[in-house]
Amino acid sequence: MKRNERLVDFTNYLINHPNKMLNLNKLSKRYEVAKSSISEDLVFIKHVFEDQGVGIVETFPGSLGGVRFTPYITDKMSQEMSEQLAKLLSEENRILPGGYIYLSDILGTPSNLKKIGQIIAHEYKDKQIDVIMTIATKGIPIAQSVAEILDVPFVIVRRDQKVTEGATLNVNYMSGSSSRVENMTLSKRSLSIGQSVLIVDDFMKGAGTINGMKSLVYEFDCFLAGVAVFLEGPFKGDRLVKEYKSILRVDSIDIANRSIDVKLGNIFENQPKD
Amino acid sequence: MKRNERLVDFTNYLINHPNKMLNLNKLSKRYEVAKSSISEDLVFIKHVFEDQGVGIVETFPGSLGGVRFTPYITDKMSQEMSEQLAKLLSEENRILPGGYIYLSDILGTPSNLKKIGQIIAHEYKDKQIDVIMTIATKGIPIAQSVAEILDVPFVIVRRDQKVTEGATLNVNYMSGSSSRVENMTLSKRSLSIGQSVLIVDDFMKGAGTINGMKSLVYEFDCFLAGVAVFLEGPFKGDRLVKEYKSILRVDSIDIANRSIDVKLGNIFENQPKD
Repeated sequence: MKRNERLVDFTNYLINHPNKMLNLNKLSKRYEVAKSSISEDLVFIKHVFEDQGVGIVETFPGSLGGVRFTPYITDKMSQEMSEQLAKLLSEENRILPGGYIYLSDILGTPSNLKKIGQIIAHEYKDKQIDVIMTIATKGIPIAQSVAEILDVPFVIVRRDQKVTEGATLNVNYMSGSSSRVENMTLSKRSLSIGQSVLIVDDFMKGAGTINGMKSLVYEFDCFLAGVAVFLEGPFKGDRLVKEYKSILRVDSIDIANRSIDVKLGNIFENQPKD
Repeated sequence: MKRNERLVDFTNYLINHPNKMLNLNKLSKRYEVAKSSISEDLVFIKHVFEDQGVGIVETFPGSLGGVRFTPYITDKMSQEMSEQLAKLLSEENRILPGGYIYLSDILGTPSNLKKIGQIIAHEYKDKQIDVIMTIATKGIPIAQSVAEILDVPFVIVRRDQKVTEGATLNVNYMSGSSSRVENMTLSKRSLSIGQSVLIVDDFMKGAGTINGMKSLVYEFDCFLAGVAVFLEGPFKGDRLVKEYKSILRVDSIDIANRSIDVKLGNIFENQPKD
């Protein structure tokens, strides 16, 4: 393979193996060239990726060392993507009877989910995250998208007990909006002691559901890395969870005029410009 | 940007815009070079991608033309990935009380989901597919993975009616295993008349649930492009759906010895070698 061909293939290889330590000896075998040539290629790709905001290419010396590609977006890209999502959410036909907001189409479109995943992954880029947790149903696509970018597993909490989950750990929680006591359940094998868990969900009002997931994290003897939601809805009074990040925020819904005022969420408060 | 740099960036750009027609004039502007240079780059990238089994790069002439990158795997890659998944599924601690199989960890790991998505997308590569349909909960990650690769939306059928879905279309269906009549529901706005729908799910026994989704497809005046499941379980008697594709198959579960015999599914029956 000539150098140009190798650059094309190597670029593809890195992009398809994000967040993984790739061994330089193996790469040198793969391309049948000296390690020094691989290193030269990497310097070159690193430079292009950083210039174009694709991601970070890090090389680690030593026999256990190698190269790792970490996809990266800038604060500015994160904000631009959120503004695009806000525009989608502002479409007038999203208001349902009862003042609910229709999200299923947004959360069923891969390009939107990729944006949501990138924004959340970017927000927690300096934290150790071992696993993503969400609750069925609409949180799942968001959890999967974040998990893909961070290359970690995701686990799905359920409101109903299923025979296909084996032994489960169950907690009761207080729904923030309706003040009812409900139950949520997660398979015992989902988490290991000491893992760092990022909770994500599509929508948050009183944060009762998220508070329930927090108690599950602690019952599993795990740590909470953070809480991130796609959309923060209007809520009067104290939320059950104070520490969370939101991509978008809706303060009020005008049911008569079927319009909503969508703002950027608290991720973008006081954020320094790039 | 020099040619080598452009090749690296262009490779990244194509991989991140799969199945999309990209305008050559816009690309020529992006890289500030003549269209002829872009075309030369494309011939080069096309050649590397085809050699390495990355995907197909097609160029279309004319003012509305451009270039489209379609990710591609070979039959052999598809079979190898399925064998890797079969090995995971054969682990002995998956058998739950009642003879159920624990799948949640496999379906919560992005690298496995990517394989499942690629295998299914490969199987339907010659069909027009507008939208992926699945039913909550465990089918969702599979639907999302296939949808990402094909760059089409996915819709989630539910067993419970939710106020966040707006008007819904509901059908009754007969559960294949337990012969009970149940209900499933899908938001009216999920599908448009005449769309071609691929149904996917994690597990199939009697195919009652899949049969219910089929009737939903027809109630929406849509077409069925196909049915694909990750795992086909043991079932005595006639399945309610005869036409389906499976990645893996389990014929019997030995509860006493906690072992299952996992075989490749019918996708790989009579398949010609590459």
